[in-house]
Amino acid sequence: MKKLEIIYGIHPLIEAIQSKKNIRKIFFHKELIQVSNAYKKLINISKKENIIIQTVPKQKFHKLKNKNHQGVFGIISPIKTYSIVDLLPVFYENGKNPLLIILDRITDVRNFGSIIRTAVCAGVDAIIIPNKNTAHIGSDSIKTSSGALFKIPICKEKSIKNTIELLINYGLKIVSATEKSNIDWYNIDFSGPTALILGNEEKGISPIYLEISCEKAKIPVIEGISSLNVSVACGIILYEVFRQRKFITK
Amino acid sequence: MKKLEIIYGIHPLIEAIQSKKNIRKIFFHKELIQVSNAYKKLINISKKENIIIQTVPKQKFHKLKNKNHQGVFGIISPIKTYSIVDLLPVFYENGKNPLLIILDRITDVRNFGSIIRTAVCAGVDAIIIPNKNTAHIGSDSIKTSSGALFKIPICKEKSIKNTIELLINYGLKIVSATEKSNIDWYNIDFSGPTALILGNEEKGISPIYLEISCEKAKIPVIEGISSLNVSVACGIILYEVFRQRKFITK
Repeated sequence: MKKLEIIYGIHPLIEAIQSKKNIRKIFFHKELIQVSNAYKKLINISKKENIIIQTVPKQKFHKLKNKNHQGVFGIISPIKTYSIVDLLPVFYENGKNPLLIILDRITDVRNFGSIIRTAVCAGVDAIIIPNKNTAHIGSDSIKTSSGALFKIPICKEKSIKNTIELLINYGLKIVSATEKSNIDWYNIDFSGPTALILGNEEKGISPIYLEISCEKAKIPVIEGISSLNVSVACGIILYEVFRQRKFITK
Repeated sequence: MKKLEIIYGIHPLIEAIQSKKNIRKIFFHKELIQVSNAYKKLINISKKENIIIQTVPKQKFHKLKNKNHQGVFGIISPIKTYSIVDLLPVFYENGKNPLLIILDRITDVRNFGSIIRTAVCAGVDAIIIPNKNTAHIGSDSIKTSSGALFKIPICKEKSIKNTIELLINYGLKIVSATEKSNIDWYNIDFSGPTALILGNEEKGISPIYLEISCEKAKIPVIEGISSLNVSVACGIILYEVFRQRKFITK
């Protein structure tokens, strides 16, 4: 863990959060922490900002033993994250025809990085991820994305379900990439604002998101043989969007 | 190195090659080998079968010290390989509209495995690789292909240039996936027999192959941002082939 990535102590953490530093997680140890008003404030603003707070064993504080850590430290994410509700109006103001990707529990860092890389190539406007059950945004995902992680806004959302509903209200078509469909991906109209949902490598897309999707896009595979990697599936659909929109603007 | 993967001694190697075992490489040490007629025969049939022969340090024979290795051993490939000239007539006899992939110096095992996986999903008939400068077909590539390596014929060819010319004579359209083109991938007609060339991760496709290609397919990316991973590019083009051919059969 790099020194620069850590902030320790209650007040420094409160300040970091208030000044919109990208605190990824806060760790504490029950016996080491003093439950003060300041501590309660830290917990409150962390929750408000969707920062995960969790306990760790005492040993994790060994490296900080000469520091005034007060039983708590946080890790700064190397990537600034956004909320899609703040970005969408900007996209529309800039005359964009938004194309978003929602990642539902993509936990493999290589797949995550590869999706980001492809998304940047294909001109996706933002990536939406949940603030739990997602690949860690760190040196590995930056590397597998070939640095593309710095070139696209990442939105961390507390509730993907609420986010999908918000996007529908904003006029976006929600398209799930799933084998549980009879509609081939190229038969879906991607000409308007679109958010593409890609699901977990093993479990696919959560049933609740499938249910509220506007369309389900299937990429057929030779039966019983194999299944497509999620980052390859992502590329196939994103470039179908490109193909369709290119035709429209011609 | 697993015991089962090694064959040592001149005569056992000759027999293995003659009985069409998939010897991947033969290793020898100058001081340990006796240049006999049998040895010359081994060299000759190895060359004929395009098996790479190379020298190794004496230490490589330590594990075989109690064996009658005669200064030479070979490694068996876990995958049986073919020659495309033997397969093509079979494809045509079976009424196939062949779709082949030619991999030009794809050396990254993960990319290799991912391409194989996607190719199997999309119904590609065979993969053509050179017998040098290519990813090692072993446990890693089998794993990253999710086992798909066992489900598609792999053709090892001594000269990719000659292979391309042979395919052209057989009526296949050779399509190179390259940024050095003005034709977007979906504007290429993939309805007939096709071989898609995918190039090295850094250097792209060899100029000589580009030159003799029938078409060059470009997948545009947002300028100056990033480049597509070769296995994602492969998926995008293969599924365009699928889309076009699906329409035709309807």
